[in-house]
Amino acid sequence: MTEPVRLSLDAAQDLVARALLAAGCSPDQAAITARALVAAEADGQAGHGLSRVPSYAAQAKSGKVNGHAVPHAQSVSPAALRIDAGYGFAYPALDLAVTKLVQLAPTMGIASATLYRSHHFGQAGAHAEKLADAGLIGLVFGNSPKAIAFWGGQAPMLGTNPVAFAAPLPEGPPLVIDFAVSVVARGKINAAKQAGETIPEGWALDRDGQPTTDPDAALAGSMLPIGGAKGAALAMMIEILAAALSGSHFGFEASSLFDGEGPPPDLGQTLVAIDPMRLSAGAYQDRMAVFLAVLGADADVRLPGSRRLINRQRAAENGLLVPAALYQSLQELAASTA
Amino acid sequence: MTEPVRLSLDAAQDLVARALLAAGCSPDQAAITARALVAAEADGQAGHGLSRVPSYAAQAKSGKVNGHAVPHAQSVSPAALRIDAGYGFAYPALDLAVTKLVQLAPTMGIASATLYRSHHFGQAGAHAEKLADAGLIGLVFGNSPKAIAFWGGQAPMLGTNPVAFAAPLPEGPPLVIDFAVSVVARGKINAAKQAGETIPEGWALDRDGQPTTDPDAALAGSMLPIGGAKGAALAMMIEILAAALSGSHFGFEASSLFDGEGPPPDLGQTLVAIDPMRLSAGAYQDRMAVFLAVLGADADVRLPGSRRLINRQRAAENGLLVPAALYQSLQELAASTA
Repeated sequence: MTEPVRLSLDAAQDLVARALLAAGCSPDQAAITARALVAAEADGQAGHGLSRVPSYAAQAKSGKVNGHAVPHAQSVSPAALRIDAGYGFAYPALDLAVTKLVQLAPTMGIASATLYRSHHFGQAGAHAEKLADAGLIGLVFGNSPKAIAFWGGQAPMLGTNPVAFAAPLPEGPPLVIDFAVSVVARGKINAAKQAGETIPEGWALDRDGQPTTDPDAALAGSMLPIGGAKGAALAMMIEILAAALSGSHFGFEASSLFDGEGPPPDLGQTLVAIDPMRLSAGAYQDRMAVFLAVLGADADVRLPGSRRLINRQRAAENGLLVPAALYQSLQELAASTA
Repeated sequence: MTEPVRLSLDAAQDLVARALLAAGCSPDQAAITARALVAAEADGQAGHGLSRVPSYAAQAKSGKVNGHAVPHAQSVSPAALRIDAGYGFAYPALDLAVTKLVQLAPTMGIASATLYRSHHFGQAGAHAEKLADAGLIGLVFGNSPKAIAFWGGQAPMLGTNPVAFAAPLPEGPPLVIDFAVSVVARGKINAAKQAGETIPEGWALDRDGQPTTDPDAALAGSMLPIGGAKGAALAMMIEILAAALSGSHFGFEASSLFDGEGPPPDLGQTLVAIDPMRLSAGAYQDRMAVFLAVLGADADVRLPGSRRLINRQRAAENGLLVPAALYQSLQELAASTA
């Protein structure tokens, strides 16, 4: 069997949840995590989608992730929450954060939640989008295991540290911006290695901090941030907002998100939710209508995040195409016992 | 007279304030604006320093800037403020925002101020730094007149849109990150033009959206953002946070900050202040101590913003070197009548 397998979203959800249940997760951890991974796959974010299931299952099995964690919210001030993800998967804690912020931000104007004892937060834009679906501007900062060097340094220290932003629009789904601060995802270097190809200069440095076009040297070195010193500073800003502000591990302390070895990664995330109609004294929607009219007047310009909507619609209609080897691995996991 | 003139910080403050008073500003607008421009010059940010005085004076004289504006704060919810800068210079309104946020954020955990009817906000990091001096993490977003195209488009639409971040450290002055999302400042292209030199590819596009090394073509075209589509998305995010959230003009609507012609630019700014000890349940300082120890272990790595401290110290000891032509222009302005 080498042809990809087509699965409906419901079937994919069921299969992934069963794989996580079999790995020892609670029904809630399994269902919520499966939903997030399937949604990322449907949105075209395969790197945060079904390909993660085997390593997620390994982490639940080894206890690196607590598959029975129940996230807990603590109010630390009128406009701020701390969410203990309990070393579980991040998605149940993120959903709790979104639920609480959707209650809090319209009253306070702005509110924040920091997550600690957390894990891979996947498609960052999805969490911001949920805030925007409730009429809020959402900002999401998360750190990740070390990949980018301090500017001037050689060894990887900072994560690729995604940032996401979502803004409600006068009609239709929100505008969603979601990017990591590395020039490319590490997966692109892995792909070049597997294809026996070189990589363009500007993607990565070798372990001596020198530019390289050799994927092996790049994987042993560090990823380059966008914009040189500016991107490295942005990675540091996100590292502080995600990890120091929540009391979590920095990228240089976090264990891998891809295997079951070692202690929990203990990553952090920070969400900020803003009520734009409140802060703008009602002007926000009209201002965004002007913005969209100007942007939409140029046929060559696309709103950031619009591809996700096309992918999402296509996946809802046609389901997901799952590579044969991954499908088989998911089936084996679902049939296994923890 | 062609030699630069050395001025103490006090003398520079006095000269700039007199120039702005002579242009018709109130004592408060003149003194606070002079302080911000001299501080930027002292920090090595000449582009936001004394070179701005002649165009600031022209704007106060023509009424494009209201030199008698008194900024006004309005509480719109427990954790959010709106600040009406009254079409004055931005600094009095920014100082009011900082004062209010320093009161509000420790109680609320997080608080935000949006500024409208505002103007050039200068050295963005200076405002964030004031929040961090009070023990808060500061985020500052501001938009600016159009310079960067929408990704895929040709005409400049978005500002270069600086973002600033400051974080208190366990001891000493805060960490300050402050950058515009364009690859280089427009001033660098002007400098190349004046020197009769070409510019490197990757700085700007011509009016047809094509890469150019000709400074004239670049000035007629658009500035490139860092990281391609990612930086363009970041510019858009800042545009929405600064302008739509405050109900201000977008970059494509704002008039020039460099001459006295036309209506007020009506730019917006958004400040966010976070109490890190509150949000981290007390872990923040210890986490930052670990971060600094790891960063400081590499002699090749410098904390972002550390050059400003060296420049600031040097300026406090030796004063500022003001180019002869600029000094003469400041003197003429100070001696003029509005």
